[in-house]
Formats: sequence, structure tokens, C-alpha cells
Amino acid sequence: MLAFRRLSWSPVELASRTAKSLSGVINFASGSPDPSLVPVREMVEIFAEVASEYGAQAFTYPGAGGLVELVRELRGYSERVLGITVGGEGELVVVSGAQHGIKLLSQLLIGPGDLVFTEDPSFWEAVDPMRFQGAVIRGVAVDRDGLDTWALEDRLRRGYRPRLVYVIPTCHNPCGYIMSPERRKHLLELAESYGFQIIEDDPYRPIAENPPQSLKNMDRSGSVIYVSSMSKVLAPGLRIGFVILSREIAEELSKLEQHDFSTATPIQLLVARALRRGLVDSLLPRLRRIYYEKIKILRESLEKHFPGSYTDIRCGFFTTLRIGTDSDRHLAKAIESGVIYVPAREFYIEEKPNDAARISISTVKPEEIEEGVIRLKKSLRPA
Amino acid sequence: MLAFRRLSWSPVELASRTAKSLSGVINFASGSPDPSLVPVREMVEIFAEVASEYGAQAFTYPGAGGLVELVRELRGYSERVLGITVGGEGELVVVSGAQHGIKLLSQLLIGPGDLVFTEDPSFWEAVDPMRFQGAVIRGVAVDRDGLDTWALEDRLRRGYRPRLVYVIPTCHNPCGYIMSPERRKHLLELAESYGFQIIEDDPYRPIAENPPQSLKNMDRSGSVIYVSSMSKVLAPGLRIGFVILSREIAEELSKLEQHDFSTATPIQLLVARALRRGLVDSLLPRLRRIYYEKIKILRESLEKHFPGSYTDIRCGFFTTLRIGTDSDRHLAKAIESGVIYVPAREFYIEEKPNDAARISISTVKPEEIEEGVIRLKKSLRPA
Repeated sequence: MLAFRRLSWSPVELASRTAKSLSGVINFASGSPDPSLVPVREMVEIFAEVASEYGAQAFTYPGAGGLVELVRELRGYSERVLGITVGGEGELVVVSGAQHGIKLLSQLLIGPGDLVFTEDPSFWEAVDPMRFQGAVIRGVAVDRDGLDTWALEDRLRRGYRPRLVYVIPTCHNPCGYIMSPERRKHLLELAESYGFQIIEDDPYRPIAENPPQSLKNMDRSGSVIYVSSMSKVLAPGLRIGFVILSREIAEELSKLEQHDFSTATPIQLLVARALRRGLVDSLLPRLRRIYYEKIKILRESLEKHFPGSYTDIRCGFFTTLRIGTDSDRHLAKAIESGVIYVPAREFYIEEKPNDAARISISTVKPEEIEEGVIRLKKSLRPA
Repeated sequence: MLAFRRLSWSPVELASRTAKSLSGVINFASGSPDPSLVPVREMVEIFAEVASEYGAQAFTYPGAGGLVELVRELRGYSERVLGITVGGEGELVVVSGAQHGIKLLSQLLIGPGDLVFTEDPSFWEAVDPMRFQGAVIRGVAVDRDGLDTWALEDRLRRGYRPRLVYVIPTCHNPCGYIMSPERRKHLLELAESYGFQIIEDDPYRPIAENPPQSLKNMDRSGSVIYVSSMSKVLAPGLRIGFVILSREIAEELSKLEQHDFSTATPIQLLVARALRRGLVDSLLPRLRRIYYEKIKILRESLEKHFPGSYTDIRCGFFTTLRIGTDSDRHLAKAIESGVIYVPAREFYIEEKPNDAARISISTVKPEEIEEGVIRLKKSLRPA
């Protein structure tokens, strides 16, 4: 019998599959952006425009590191929208979504036995590629001001030497927290003192109102690798993300990406044109307004029906709710009651609470949010 | 200073970059399909059709293993065009091009120190991901009838125990060879006797005239993993490939692919529709006619100007020519003379001949082929 590596299914993928076959169920499981905010018509127009302009060239092999057209536009976008100054040439690498970027970085930076600290809980899909590379993942407490950098410092003082610290400091997945400027500063000081690298996973920044400055932009010691994506602002099915990092690692990342060679050329051209035309920038005010409206309704509904049991969502799509019973086992009953969530036990690193559920407002309609919370509450009543 | 893995640039990527900035140079370096054969207009139509039918759903996250619409069409295509019977559900996995499939398989199947046999020479881009996983790569001789399975058997008898044998049996890259049916049978017997897995990399089958049956279809012991692509028949920039393998490994491959999550949803729908409409099938006779015409001209030109110095190209895009001088160093002079190739030293595994050049007919026009060969010949004359 042939030996091969075994992996686990993502809890998000499992819940998404279930959600797909359901109708009339309020979907708190999806991490996709709101479909009503995807500019379908404009993308069709741009695709035709790009194909007519580039001809067969729009369908040829992409080449390493991303098309120059797209790299140029993403640099502008980073500076204009994300407030991140991209240094010299070659410091921005196009990848097939932030997920792909994190996987490649894991391959490049992590070897068996390397210690990685993450927020606890953290995003399962980002952590799993690091585990696959043999990383020892340890969780550090997180609260509404983000990663508890004092708890991290305590571990460092006790002799722990991480290779990497992976964080989602702005609109944390699955908690919705925002890391405070003070803690950001502290984390950067620790990185410099103890010589570890930080991966800043930051896809929600463009839909956050006045977020604190990114770690990347505060970084003076070259400790931060920045990962972002067009998934939350244009469409996740395009699979376009980007990584901003030192030129030296960027070159290795581009070479490693050649093993996948996975980012479709016409889509790179499409996104470049969408950025150049101002389509993305013009969408942002509406995206922010709608997501914040939904967050507000979710918070009010949870405060009414589950007071004290949810993480204090400040931006992004997610909160983590403790439902008081095994969230894996309860899922079937919740679906029967017309609501679906992602069981979130596997998002936790150290102690894994059975009753955690990730609740997302991304695709659900504003007027369905409270109804979803009520259905979930009802489903939990003893029969 | 941060430690990270170092990689090499692909010789194909390096030559492609050089070729991009040149004009008036006959391009024997590109492995892209002929741009005049890419159905741009039809793809634009289909993109619009799919977007109007699926709406925002065409731009959402793809989900694991490939969209059901595309998996269904690729199963039909495999049976109808490639002559490969796909077994049960879940045995065909969509990937972002054959390259991506090979990289994922390397991650799944290969650990440090594992022995992998390949044809010598072999396709650099497929071998590099295996090396990255720590494989020990050993080359086995190849001739116009493909991998020398007797040489392989000799190694096996001497105690070598490969984890994998990686082959491009039909229209070999970079030699243009076709493995004979007898050797295919022999290789499968060896796989069964000695318990190794075969990766059959087979992107050129659809453009080959009456190729021998695939290893996959002759396989009775579950030894073969089949990798193919839409790059040579529709367009390489779409980044759509597929892997056919046992359900058990397929499931792990799908999970691992979730770490990349890289195959764009609208493109998956586009390719599914192109297959359903019969667009791909209708292109094939013309593709075959044109590529064979170009192969014929190339063989005649090489026979006239470089008799006895090239591999006997039978199908696909490539032959390997020995130019009698260091092909890396000579490249600048060749370009000055108006022709570019890929220095092929790094395609070799054991002894690496300095004077090997990979010559491709894929994008060059039929009427330019002999001129390109003449330019190359002239560039080699002592000044």
C-alpha cells in the first residue's frame, strides 16, 4: 500500500458544503463577501475589453511574480487605500489569493519543529499549511485589543523562540477584534528584540473604517511580511492576492510560486484594469457602510439573545459565539431550525472549547440577521 | 538575518523573460501554444454567458476539488478525447494547471531522501518541486521509444527502491519522443512488482495523432496518477489542469489544494462551458494539423543544418539540439543573430551536457522555422 500524507478537512469547507445544498437557511457560515456587492456587469465588460486589447496575449502563461500591469496597480492600491508604502521594485508579489500566499510563505519559512505563535483562536485555513510544514503551533491569548503581546513577551522571556508570529490584527477571523496601536508597537519591538518574523494577514483592512496603521507600515526592522487580497473588495472567486515583503524573500517567493504557476492571466489583467479604472476604490464606501450596518445589527441581536457569550466584533465579518453545547453535534439541529454556522473548535490552538461557533455576517442580508440569531437561540432550547 | 529556503529560477522562465523584451527574434524558447490557435472571441462570449447565468455565484469561492460542472465536463473529455476511463466519483481533481498538480502531488507523496526516477532529460519545472520536497532525483536513459525500462529494471534489480517514477511518455518534453506500447507495459509491470507509483504527465495527448494508450488506461494495479491540462488545447493562461487518481489519494489532494485554493471560479465555469459547447473538441483537428506541419518543417530544417544532433521529435512542441558549444554562453550571440532557445543543461539529471538547447515550434510561424534554424547555424560559425 502506498504511503501518502493525510490531511484534515477545513471546518469552513465542511460547513460550506452543507450550506450549498440547503435553501431557506440563514447562512452564518460563509466567509464570502456579500454577493449583492460583486460588480458582475463591470467585470464582464472589463474582461471583454482586456481580451480585445491583448488578444491571445491575455491567455498566455502568466510569468513569475505577477503581470507588470497588475503589480503596478496593486502598488498604487496599497499606498492609496491600505496606506502601505511599498518599497522598491520586486517587493510586491501577486499570488492566487491570500490563502495561497500564506501557504507559499509556510513552505519558504517553516521547517519541521519550528515554533509558530498565533492568536488563539486563529484562522484554521492559514494555520493548517504551517502545520503541514511541520510547525509546532502555539496559541497566545487574544482580546478586543488583539493579540496579548504581554503574554507573548512572557513566553519569549521563558525561552520560547518562535520562527514566526502569524496575526490577523485588523478585523480578526474568527473574533472580529482590532489590535491596538500600542500592542502593534509592542509586537514589533518584540520581533526586533527576539528576531522573529511576523506574517500580517490583512484582507479586511479596505472594508474597515479608520483602522490603525498596519504593522507593515510601522515596521522599521524588516520583520513584517504583509498578505492581502482582492477577495473582500472585488470577488473571492478571482483568486487574486498579494504579498509585500523584502526583495530578497520576494524573489524566493516568486520562484516557489512557479511550482504552482496558478494565477490566471486574463484574471490578472481584469483586476489590473478594474483597479486602474477606479472600480475598486469606488466600491469601498458602500462596502464599508453595508458591512458596518450588518455588524451593528449582529451585535444588537447577540446582546439581546446571547449576552456576554460572543467576542466583541469591531469590524470584518466574524464573531465567535459560545453556544453552551457541542457546536459540532448541534449543527444538524441548528440547520433544522433554519440557520447554519461554522463549528469553531478547530480554530482554537490550546484549549479547544466544544461550544464555539463562528458567526459571519458577510453574505446574510441585514434583515435576516436577527431572525438567524433567534432561530439559533430557539434551536438550543431543550426539547 | 532570517533564514529561508533558496530556490533556482527555471531556465524556461529566464529565457521567456529575455524573449519578451525582444522583437524580430524567432522564438524557439516558448512552450506556450500557438497564439493564433487561441479562441479569444469564443472565450469572451462564454465568459459573458456564464456571468449572466450564474451572476455573483460565478465569482464566489471555488470550493474543494473543482466545481461539479467542470469535473463533469472533464470526465467526459477524458473519456472521449484522451481515451481514459475515469472510475468512480471523486477520482478527478481540478488543479490550476498540470504544474500545480505535480507540485501538490510532490507535497503529498515525497519526503526528504525519497528516491524519484525520471527520464533523463526531463521537464525542469516538474522536477524542481520534487527536489524542493527533498527527493533524490535519478535519471534513466530515454530514446525515441521513451524511457529505457530495461535500464530502469537493472537499477531496481540492483536494489534501488524509488518512491515514484515521473514520466512524460507521450510527446516528451524536451525530446519529443513517444514511449512505445511495449515499454509502457513493461513499466507498469515493474511498478507492480517493485511497488512504486508512476506520475504520467500527459498534456500533449490531445494534440498527438493516434498516440499509444495512456499508462493510466493500461494500469491494472492502481500504480498510475495521471496529470493533464487545458493549456495546450484551449489556453495556458487559464490555469486549468486536472489529475486522475484513486479516490483515496484524490481526497487528500483536494484537501491539500485547499491550502492554495487557487483555481479561479469564473475560469472553471468558462472551461466547463467551452467543453460542453464542443469548442475544445472542434479545435483539435486544426491544432494537430498545424503542430505536425511545424514539426515536419523543423525536422527537415534540422536534418539539413544539424544532421544527427537533435532528438527525434515525433510529437508535441520540443526537440533537444546539441549545438556543440556552451548553450548558456551562446544565447546572447544567438539572440544577436535573431533567434532564441532555452539552454537545456538543467533539464538533464545525471550528466549535464553544456551544449544542449531546447527548441520549440509551439509559437513560431511555419514559415519562420527554417529561417530560425539557419540563424542559429550562422550564429555558431567562428567569427
